[in-house]
Amino acid sequence: MIFLRRNFILFILMLSAIVLHAQEKTPKWGIFELTLQGNSSGNPFIDTKLSAEFKHGNKVYRPEGFYDGNGVFKIRFMPNEEGVWTYVTNSNDKKLNNKKGKFICTAALPNVHGPVRVSHKYHFAYEDSTNYTPFGTTIYEWSFRGKENRAQTIETLKTSPFNKVRMLAIPPYKKNYVEGPDKLTLFPFVGTDKTNFDFTRFNPEYFKILEEDIKSLSEIGIEADFILFRPYDKGKWGFDMMADSTNIMYIKYMVARFAAYHNIWWSMCNENSFIKHLTDEDWDRYFQAVQKADPYSHLLSIHNADRLYDYTKPWVTHVSYQYYNVVKSPWGTSLLSDIYRKPIVNDEINYEGNSGSRWGQLTGEEMTFRFWNAYIGCGFATHGETTPTGWISGGGKLEGESPARIAFLRKILEDGPKGGLEPIDKYYTPNFAGKYGEYYLIYFGKETPTEWKFKLPKSMLATGMKFKVDVIDTWNMTITPVDKSFEIQALDNYSYIDKQKQSITLSGKPYMALRIIKIGDETETQKANKTKINELE
Amino acid sequence: MIFLRRNFILFILMLSAIVLHAQEKTPKWGIFELTLQGNSSGNPFIDTKLSAEFKHGNKVYRPEGFYDGNGVFKIRFMPNEEGVWTYVTNSNDKKLNNKKGKFICTAALPNVHGPVRVSHKYHFAYEDSTNYTPFGTTIYEWSFRGKENRAQTIETLKTSPFNKVRMLAIPPYKKNYVEGPDKLTLFPFVGTDKTNFDFTRFNPEYFKILEEDIKSLSEIGIEADFILFRPYDKGKWGFDMMADSTNIMYIKYMVARFAAYHNIWWSMCNENSFIKHLTDEDWDRYFQAVQKADPYSHLLSIHNADRLYDYTKPWVTHVSYQYYNVVKSPWGTSLLSDIYRKPIVNDEINYEGNSGSRWGQLTGEEMTFRFWNAYIGCGFATHGETTPTGWISGGGKLEGESPARIAFLRKILEDGPKGGLEPIDKYYTPNFAGKYGEYYLIYFGKETPTEWKFKLPKSMLATGMKFKVDVIDTWNMTITPVDKSFEIQALDNYSYIDKQKQSITLSGKPYMALRIIKIGDETETQKANKTKINELE
Repeated sequence: MIFLRRNFILFILMLSAIVLHAQEKTPKWGIFELTLQGNSSGNPFIDTKLSAEFKHGNKVYRPEGFYDGNGVFKIRFMPNEEGVWTYVTNSNDKKLNNKKGKFICTAALPNVHGPVRVSHKYHFAYEDSTNYTPFGTTIYEWSFRGKENRAQTIETLKTSPFNKVRMLAIPPYKKNYVEGPDKLTLFPFVGTDKTNFDFTRFNPEYFKILEEDIKSLSEIGIEADFILFRPYDKGKWGFDMMADSTNIMYIKYMVARFAAYHNIWWSMCNENSFIKHLTDEDWDRYFQAVQKADPYSHLLSIHNADRLYDYTKPWVTHVSYQYYNVVKSPWGTSLLSDIYRKPIVNDEINYEGNSGSRWGQLTGEEMTFRFWNAYIGCGFATHGETTPTGWISGGGKLEGESPARIAFLRKILEDGPKGGLEPIDKYYTPNFAGKYGEYYLIYFGKETPTEWKFKLPKSMLATGMKFKVDVIDTWNMTITPVDKSFEIQALDNYSYIDKQKQSITLSGKPYMALRIIKIGDETETQKANKTKINELE
Repeated sequence: MIFLRRNFILFILMLSAIVLHAQEKTPKWGIFELTLQGNSSGNPFIDTKLSAEFKHGNKVYRPEGFYDGNGVFKIRFMPNEEGVWTYVTNSNDKKLNNKKGKFICTAALPNVHGPVRVSHKYHFAYEDSTNYTPFGTTIYEWSFRGKENRAQTIETLKTSPFNKVRMLAIPPYKKNYVEGPDKLTLFPFVGTDKTNFDFTRFNPEYFKILEEDIKSLSEIGIEADFILFRPYDKGKWGFDMMADSTNIMYIKYMVARFAAYHNIWWSMCNENSFIKHLTDEDWDRYFQAVQKADPYSHLLSIHNADRLYDYTKPWVTHVSYQYYNVVKSPWGTSLLSDIYRKPIVNDEINYEGNSGSRWGQLTGEEMTFRFWNAYIGCGFATHGETTPTGWISGGGKLEGESPARIAFLRKILEDGPKGGLEPIDKYYTPNFAGKYGEYYLIYFGKETPTEWKFKLPKSMLATGMKFKVDVIDTWNMTITPVDKSFEIQALDNYSYIDKQKQSITLSGKPYMALRIIKIGDETETQKANKTKINELE
C-alpha cells in the first residue's frame, strides 16, 4: 500500500510536472488550454517546436503551441463541436512530446455564437448563423493605457452601439510612452528600448495584457479586430523595420497565442503602405503565413493607406478600407462590393472631433451621414472620435454626437430583413437598399426633399401589393409612421407607383430616410407575377 | 536570248504565282502586306499554318498570316522603325513556306503617330509620345449599315470631338438585319443564317468591310476600339454560343487580319457577363490568346455588364467600364485608378437621348456633367446618343447637345498640362484636378456656388506664388477671365489662400468650373519651399 501510494504520488507529481494544467471541460468556442513544462535552456521561442492534434469524430485541428516563459509552454484550442475531443502533442522537446489527453466540449456559454464568418458573400454572421452586422469603433491603443482606463473602456463599450473594435497589437511610438506617467514598461519583445530589444525573444507578460483585453471584449460580445503590424514608429523602436524572418516568427507567435479566442479578427496592418519597405508581395506572404497557421480561419484583412492592397486575393476574407470618398455616397460601398465580391467594411472614414489634423475633424452630422451611406451601400463602417478625450486611440469615454445616431441606425437594421440589406436597383437608385418586394430603406443624405412620390423599382413587385411607410429623421432619431397605406400598380418597364399617385410629405431637412415595408398577404397571381429584373438591361 | 528570255518570263511568272504582291516601301506604322498563293483544297482556315518573321536590327516580330479565300494567303506587318526590314515565311504549305524578301520602312505619314499606349500609368499617348486623350463615342453597328451611312459617319466624325469609336466586329441580332432593306448578306462565317453557318470557315468578304472602316477611321485620326465578342444574339445566329475552339480560332484570325492597323484597340467583349456560359476564366484565356497572337501589344480590355471582370489582371492594359454611378462624382474615377492602377475609361455612362430604355435617356446636361466628372477624376469617358437617328449603333449624324460641350472640354484639356490631369488632394478635394503648383481645374458639378474663396491644397505651393483664374461655364461654353491675380500665403497645415483673402464671384448656376494657372516666375526660395505632401497623413 505504502509502495503503491508513493508510486501513485510520484506518478501524480510527474504528471503535474508535465501537464501543468488542462481543463476537463471547455464550452464550445471557449478555450481549452494545455499547459506543459518544457526546457527553458537556449531560446525556446526559436528552438522549440510544439503543436498538438485535436480530434473529434472526423474533425482534426493542429494548433501550434507557444512558449510562455519560465519553461512553460501552452497550446490553446477552440473546440467547435460538443462532445469528447482527444489530443496528442508533437514536439522536438521530449518533455513536451506525445502528451495525450481528452476533454469534453460542453454547450456554448450564453451569448457566445462562435467566430464571425462571411455570410451570403457580402455579409457576416456568427458561426452558429446568428446575425452579425459590424458596427466598429477604434480604440487603437487602449491596451497600453493602464488598468483603470482599460476597465473604463469596457464599461463604455457595454452601452455603446459598437460590436467590433480595432486595436493595435504593437503600440505606436509616442513621446508619452517613453517618458512620464504613461511610460510603457512592457513591449512585445524582451527589452525596454531600441538599444536593447531582443527580436528573437517575445515578452509573454506583454501579451498577457492583450489577452486580458480580448477576453474582456469577448465577455461583452465585442469582436477584436486585432492589428498585427503598424507603421507608427518614427524610427524609434524598430517594430516596423524588423527582419522578414522576425515578422514571420511574430505572426506565428501571435496566431498561436490568440487564434483560440473566438472574437479575434486578423488585421494584417493599419495603413500598411506607410511601412514603405514592405511590398504587396511581402504582405501576400504574411497573409499566407496567418492563413496557414490559423486552424480556425478567422476573418483576415488589411487596412490600407495610400496604396490599395488587392482585396480580391483569395486569403482576404473581407475589405477593410480607408478611402473617405467611398462613404460620401451610398454607391461607393456597393461599387466596392461589385469589384471585390466580399463584405466591405469602411474601417476608416475620418473621425468625429476637433483634432488639429483634418482626418479628425468630422461633425457628428457628417460621421452619421457617412455611416448611413456605408450601410445603405450594403456595407459597414467604423467609427472613431478624436474629441476631447481621444477615444480613437485610448478608449475611455465616448463624447461625440454620432454614437447615439449609430445606435439608432443599428436598431433600424436589426429590425430590418434577416441577413442584412441588399442593393435595390443600384445603378439607378443607389440610395435605396433593402429586400426586394419586402422592405426598402431610402436615404436622402444631404438632399432636402419636401415630398417623395411613391415609386419603387420593379423587381419582385406585382400590382396590388400594399406597403406602409415610416419617415425617419436619422439625426434627430425619430421614426414617424405615415398614416396611410400604399397600393401599387405598374408605371412602366422599370417602376411601380401608388395607384392613387400618393406622395409622402417630407420636412425639407437633410439626413431624412424612408422605411417602406410590405403589408398583408400576396395573392397567388401577385406571387406568380413577381420577377427579379436584370437592372443593367 | 530566246531561251534566256523565256526562262526569265517563267521566273517572273513563278515569282508572281508565289508572292502575288508585296510593297517595296511602307511608311512607319503603315501596313506591309505580303500576298501569297497557296493551296485552297481542304479547309485552309484550319489546315494551313502560316507566319513570317520580320527583322530589323535587333527587332524581331512574328505575325501570323491568314487565309483570304480563293487560295490567297496574306501576312500583314506594321513596322515601327525606319530602315530595311527583311522577312521569311514559315508554313506547312510548301507554296507558302520560306518566302523571303525585304522592304524599306519610310517615315511615318503626317498625322500618324503609331499605336496608342498607356503612358504614365493612368494616361495614354501615341507610340511617338504625342499626347492622346481619349474622347470616345459608340457607333457599334456602323459597319453593317451600308456604304452611304458609313461614308456619312466618317464625315460626321471628322468635325466631332471624338477620337475613339467603339465598334462591334460581329453584328448584334436584330430583326431588320434578317429582313427588309437592311438585311445583312455577309457574316463572319460562311453561310446566311443559323441553319447553315459553317463555323470552321470565315468569310473574308465580311472582314474586308470592317477593314475598310478601320482604315477610314485611321485616315481621320480615330482609334477603333474593336469589340471581338458580344452577347446580343437572342439565340438566333449562335455567334455568342460558339465552341471554345471556334472562339480561339476566331481570335487568332481577327488578330492576324487586324493587328497591323495602328489604330486598333482590342475590346474582348461588350457587356461580357451577358454571355452567360462564359466564365471569367474563359475570358482570361481569350485575353491571353489575343496577347499571345498580337505582335504589337495593342491596348486590350473588356467591357463589363453585371459581373465586373478583374481589371487588375496583367493582360488588361486599361479599364473599360460600364458602371454609371462612377461618373456621378469625380472621385469615382480616381477611386478606380487607385484600385486598378491603370487608365480608367468609363466606356458606358448611359446615353444621351430619348430612348424607351432608361439607359438611353440622359439629357445633354447630364451627359456633359458625367464627362466632366470622368475627366476631373483623371480618367476618360465615352459618349453615345440614342436620339433621334440612333448614332449609338449606326453612326450617321450626331444630333445631341453634349458633343459641342465635349469638344469644349477637350479644348480645355488640350490647353492644359502636357501629359494630362492628376488628382489634386483627392481624399479631401476630389473635385480638383490639374498639376500641383502649376494648374488647377475645379469643377462644381450640380452645386450652385455664388462665391469661391481662393484656397488651394498645400502640395507644391509656396508663399508669394501668383495665380490667374478663369471662370468656366461648362454648359454655355464660356471662359471668363477674372480681372485680378492672386498671391498666396499659407493658411494652415493643408492649404494656401490669397493673402488679401480675395474671393471669386460665381453665378449661382450649376455646371461651373474654375481654371487656375500659375503666373510669373518663382523665386529660388519659393522653389526650395515647395514639397509634395502625403495627403492621407
